[in-house]
Amino acid sequence: MQITLMTRFYDKLKKNLDRTGTLLCVGLDPDLSRIPSFYSQNCEGIYQFLLDVIAQTQDKCIAYKPNISFFEGLGLDGLKVLEKIVRAIPDYIPVVIDAKRGDIGNTSKMQARYIYDYFGADATTLHPYMGEDSLLPFFDYKDKFNFVLALTSNPSAKQFEMRDLHDSTPLYRFIFEQCIAWHKQFQNVGVVVGGTQEHLKTLRSYSKDLLFLIPGIGAQGGDYNFAREAGANADGLALINVSRAVLYPETSISDAIQSIT
Amino acid sequence: MQITLMTRFYDKLKKNLDRTGTLLCVGLDPDLSRIPSFYSQNCEGIYQFLLDVIAQTQDKCIAYKPNISFFEGLGLDGLKVLEKIVRAIPDYIPVVIDAKRGDIGNTSKMQARYIYDYFGADATTLHPYMGEDSLLPFFDYKDKFNFVLALTSNPSAKQFEMRDLHDSTPLYRFIFEQCIAWHKQFQNVGVVVGGTQEHLKTLRSYSKDLLFLIPGIGAQGGDYNFAREAGANADGLALINVSRAVLYPETSISDAIQSIT
Repeated sequence: MQITLMTRFYDKLKKNLDRTGTLLCVGLDPDLSRIPSFYSQNCEGIYQFLLDVIAQTQDKCIAYKPNISFFEGLGLDGLKVLEKIVRAIPDYIPVVIDAKRGDIGNTSKMQARYIYDYFGADATTLHPYMGEDSLLPFFDYKDKFNFVLALTSNPSAKQFEMRDLHDSTPLYRFIFEQCIAWHKQFQNVGVVVGGTQEHLKTLRSYSKDLLFLIPGIGAQGGDYNFAREAGANADGLALINVSRAVLYPETSISDAIQSIT
Repeated sequence: MQITLMTRFYDKLKKNLDRTGTLLCVGLDPDLSRIPSFYSQNCEGIYQFLLDVIAQTQDKCIAYKPNISFFEGLGLDGLKVLEKIVRAIPDYIPVVIDAKRGDIGNTSKMQARYIYDYFGADATTLHPYMGEDSLLPFFDYKDKFNFVLALTSNPSAKQFEMRDLHDSTPLYRFIFEQCIAWHKQFQNVGVVVGGTQEHLKTLRSYSKDLLFLIPGIGAQGGDYNFAREAGANADGLALINVSRAVLYPETSISDAIQSIT
């Protein structure tokens, strides 16, 4: 089944693949306890640190993925940094605000307003647990793109996500199938599939076209080249996210990127 | 099985039941398009509106539950209102910030820091999908209380939550059982069970003690007295949440509360 992909986000992504040749998505997860000591150990230091990370990575990545929780952890001043960082990222590089939202419909509408209208993100991530009506307010943003959690990279993915349903389909697989249907209908739905998961290849075999956001590379043990080979879609696209291993490298960011990719 | 409940949140709740005789939890979900026209149609108006709601309800409720998304929908100025509102609520009434968080462990730690340390909430709500390691950083806050989504009040709860697992147990029931185990271990775990769900009574029969947060009363069609009878635990406690029907009543807030309870 051919799925037409036509959001602004997807077009941007394609152009960035042409521009850089990489599927690397840089996770912007600022942690005061880990930024180099020559930055002020406060929100201004975090801001300068992230500007430097962006300057050093913008020619080597396909997208940025700030996880909003790392900014929230710093309180409202941290969220102001997120606001400034989204604006500082060159407009041609898409921004996924990793927010893992999802609530009843009128509440999800407010969540989508925050992530898409207020921050101006190009894409976000969503918790599927509450089902379709909790996700529709996000899908309704035609220019934006929504990655629904299917199979995550953490060890406890085994507990519920990988649990078999009545017909022996694991839950994540059932949700994956729903995402294919949603994408067919809304053309702006992809999935989160952990790069630590051997199932990456199998999931790709169920859909040539669905876009994968693949976390878990680097610090969590997943391999970039495996993820690229197993996870890219028919357009050669995926977002392979690396956060800690790029942000807090042993030597330099460019060495870290070279050794990862 | 007797579960010892001993968090500060639970004690506060008990005292508020003694004080008011009600299980009503007032959901503070401010919507600019619905607040009375004599308030300024901005964040200051929202703040004044919520102060008035609190003044009119503090002797008639057991807890407040601001849903953070309604403040997020107003941007960072909205979140500043949330900050002020949490401080304005009398200290003896517990505050549940409904945030529906959950991510990999180091990220959940930041989420818990935001909700518990920054805003100073007494409790929050969590998405179970990613499993135990995504929830532990919240459970680690011994003085706080965590409501894990089990069976929500929205129609799409049917899609994944109510899906049968391999042994014919519905997913929400399996998660409910995990919550019993978590509560036994951490003593600060409860569940969200929609008041629109006929399963409320059945779930209560599986545990005398687990604390239920019950949304879906009022605008969503659930009935307060059914929820109280079916959902209260051995201590006579539950949080029966009403948002829209109390905040945006046809006549007055006190008439609305009287007709609901």
